[in-house]
Amino acid sequence: MIAERDEAPLAGMRVVEVSSFVAAPLGGLTLAQLGAEVIRVDPAGGGPDYTRWPLAPSGTSLYWTGLNKNKRSVALNLRDPADQQAIRDLVTGSGPDGGILLTNASYPWLAYEALRAQRPDVIHLQVTGKRDGGTGVDYTVNAGIGFPLATGPQELAGPVNHVLPAWDVACGLYAATGILAAERHRRRSGQGRAITLALEDVALAITGHLGFLAEAELTGAGRPRIGNHLYGSLARDFATASGDRILVVVLTSRHFADLGRCTGLAETLAAVERAVGGDFATDAGRYEHREVICGLLAPWFAARSTAEVEAILAQTSLLWQRYRTFAQVAADPATAANPLMRRIDQPGVGPVTVPGMPLVQPGLPDVTQAPALGADTGTRWEGAAATAQ
Amino acid sequence: MIAERDEAPLAGMRVVEVSSFVAAPLGGLTLAQLGAEVIRVDPAGGGPDYTRWPLAPSGTSLYWTGLNKNKRSVALNLRDPADQQAIRDLVTGSGPDGGILLTNASYPWLAYEALRAQRPDVIHLQVTGKRDGGTGVDYTVNAGIGFPLATGPQELAGPVNHVLPAWDVACGLYAATGILAAERHRRRSGQGRAITLALEDVALAITGHLGFLAEAELTGAGRPRIGNHLYGSLARDFATASGDRILVVVLTSRHFADLGRCTGLAETLAAVERAVGGDFATDAGRYEHREVICGLLAPWFAARSTAEVEAILAQTSLLWQRYRTFAQVAADPATAANPLMRRIDQPGVGPVTVPGMPLVQPGLPDVTQAPALGADTGTRWEGAAATAQ
Repeated sequence: MIAERDEAPLAGMRVVEVSSFVAAPLGGLTLAQLGAEVIRVDPAGGGPDYTRWPLAPSGTSLYWTGLNKNKRSVALNLRDPADQQAIRDLVTGSGPDGGILLTNASYPWLAYEALRAQRPDVIHLQVTGKRDGGTGVDYTVNAGIGFPLATGPQELAGPVNHVLPAWDVACGLYAATGILAAERHRRRSGQGRAITLALEDVALAITGHLGFLAEAELTGAGRPRIGNHLYGSLARDFATASGDRILVVVLTSRHFADLGRCTGLAETLAAVERAVGGDFATDAGRYEHREVICGLLAPWFAARSTAEVEAILAQTSLLWQRYRTFAQVAADPATAANPLMRRIDQPGVGPVTVPGMPLVQPGLPDVTQAPALGADTGTRWEGAAATAQ
Repeated sequence: MIAERDEAPLAGMRVVEVSSFVAAPLGGLTLAQLGAEVIRVDPAGGGPDYTRWPLAPSGTSLYWTGLNKNKRSVALNLRDPADQQAIRDLVTGSGPDGGILLTNASYPWLAYEALRAQRPDVIHLQVTGKRDGGTGVDYTVNAGIGFPLATGPQELAGPVNHVLPAWDVACGLYAATGILAAERHRRRSGQGRAITLALEDVALAITGHLGFLAEAELTGAGRPRIGNHLYGSLARDFATASGDRILVVVLTSRHFADLGRCTGLAETLAAVERAVGGDFATDAGRYEHREVICGLLAPWFAARSTAEVEAILAQTSLLWQRYRTFAQVAADPATAANPLMRRIDQPGVGPVTVPGMPLVQPGLPDVTQAPALGADTGTRWEGAAATAQ
């Protein structure tokens, strides 16, 4: 059926996505860039995310086009029972490798039972805000889970919201995982399933897996706000004479020895270690005395240009990175030269450099532009008629 | 083989994980909590993440135990050729549903070609820092991609590191997706494959998908630092008379009308809208005048207790959330009551509440404790001998 994609891991799979914002669209994009045929369904005229920022100078949403690359687009009147039936038919009548819905919409006409009545082995993955089906978005979930009050300068009293919608991203990738796991199960058992995935549960799961909730439960206190220090290790940003900041991360004794050697501060650090009675050979010891250690290091960075510091750090085993703005990343020739990135001509935007699939392997589909909204409305989908029940 | 797990979507699958830190272990945990048998391999005595913070009062790492629930543990001498061979045998000789390696180690003896020589259809997923195989960790990748210089109070000059290792999390979930996609491909084609996944590419992909890189490329300027405002919409935190902060998110005109109504400020907002010549009916208009709108709203929140504000907001369609600390989340009875969370007795830690799998569906395995390091060393794995080549 999709002969030219035979090497893509998800060749032949068809997923219908009735979605908006980040999580569900990112789940669909992930499957699409692994070779699945993903059909995004929107309300005619576009959903609430169709004009979401960031925007191109033309006004086209770079958010919408960014999250819908490699997909097909169907736009219908979601209030019209005939169009609702067409969407159910599209999900259920799409061959043995289809019958998969990914959605963050909660229309009764699109519920698992409604689809299962048409196709018993349908896979239905429903993203919600809260586990009980209530609303919630990345920003509210983040406010409720604890990170904003542990992020940013120590002297700050208020919360710091994240800019990366990290819970939406995690939720979208969980959704992709969940669909593939369910598809494997269906292939073995012949059975479909309903899966629900709450954004709030995603945040709770990840925060718990990382130990932050257990720490708070067992000690009565959560991870403190420690600015740009790394909890339990030695890492911080340092300003250079050029006005840049450079992050240095010490995870091993070898890193720490290298840091002492390359800055010429090894003896000073050893003397201070004795003076404070610390143990700079361990993560915990370096963390305990992080302010003293960083205080000793900061003038070394401040006295040197960024280029000088980078040249010296490059000779060591240390993990380090100059902080960059989005503009610097986009303007760096290495970004466009990364095989992950492709130059496409995006309708409504023009030529632009966009990413493909970071899971590098043979047979990945080319990165293709996001479709114009509704470009595939009215298409008679191959495979659909033959298997409709 | 795993009869009691027949309903779990990944029942029967076996994955060997030679891993450390967050990304690869989270990928394995995700597969394990969907029913796969995941065997984590560590160096005898534990790897560099075995004592990573956060810690329990006992000193046991809540990070390590949190990321290794539902797994088996094998600890071997990774420098001993016999143990290296045992690990290759474990990966390759594990039945038709096995032959899967997830690793962030880069030992030549564990490379794809070495495993493929023993089992042609092996699936080998290698997590790296950079695409060229170079090192990189969540913190350095984040410094290099742009978010720290766009996060936090507007008046700040320096970067704000994230506390959630969001790139590690995304990388781990990409890894789970990648393994399942490859397993589907193997099931259809009989062929295994080598997949590489660079943490740096994960960050580049997500940042690009969200439109931040395209915006910077097309406009020459990246998303500005705007404190806790939501880019292109109206959302911000407000301090209450009780000293809490509450996040309010306005994504639609209905939300905005509700906000005006519940605060009694509808007429004032309309008068100000006329005075500034703005259009508060659109996301863009509300974003343009965010400082004025939030300036009007702030005193209303500041004059009321948190309980009062919450009671009023609860009557509206608005998205809102009180900011909480990790300690408040852990102490909230609703956290332990969430079916996602389970009470387990973790060796080295004691009784503790931990999360299971947010992809809710039938047949998920129970949440089980992380194994003691090396608890399963020397096990003769069922299925292994029968299919070893």
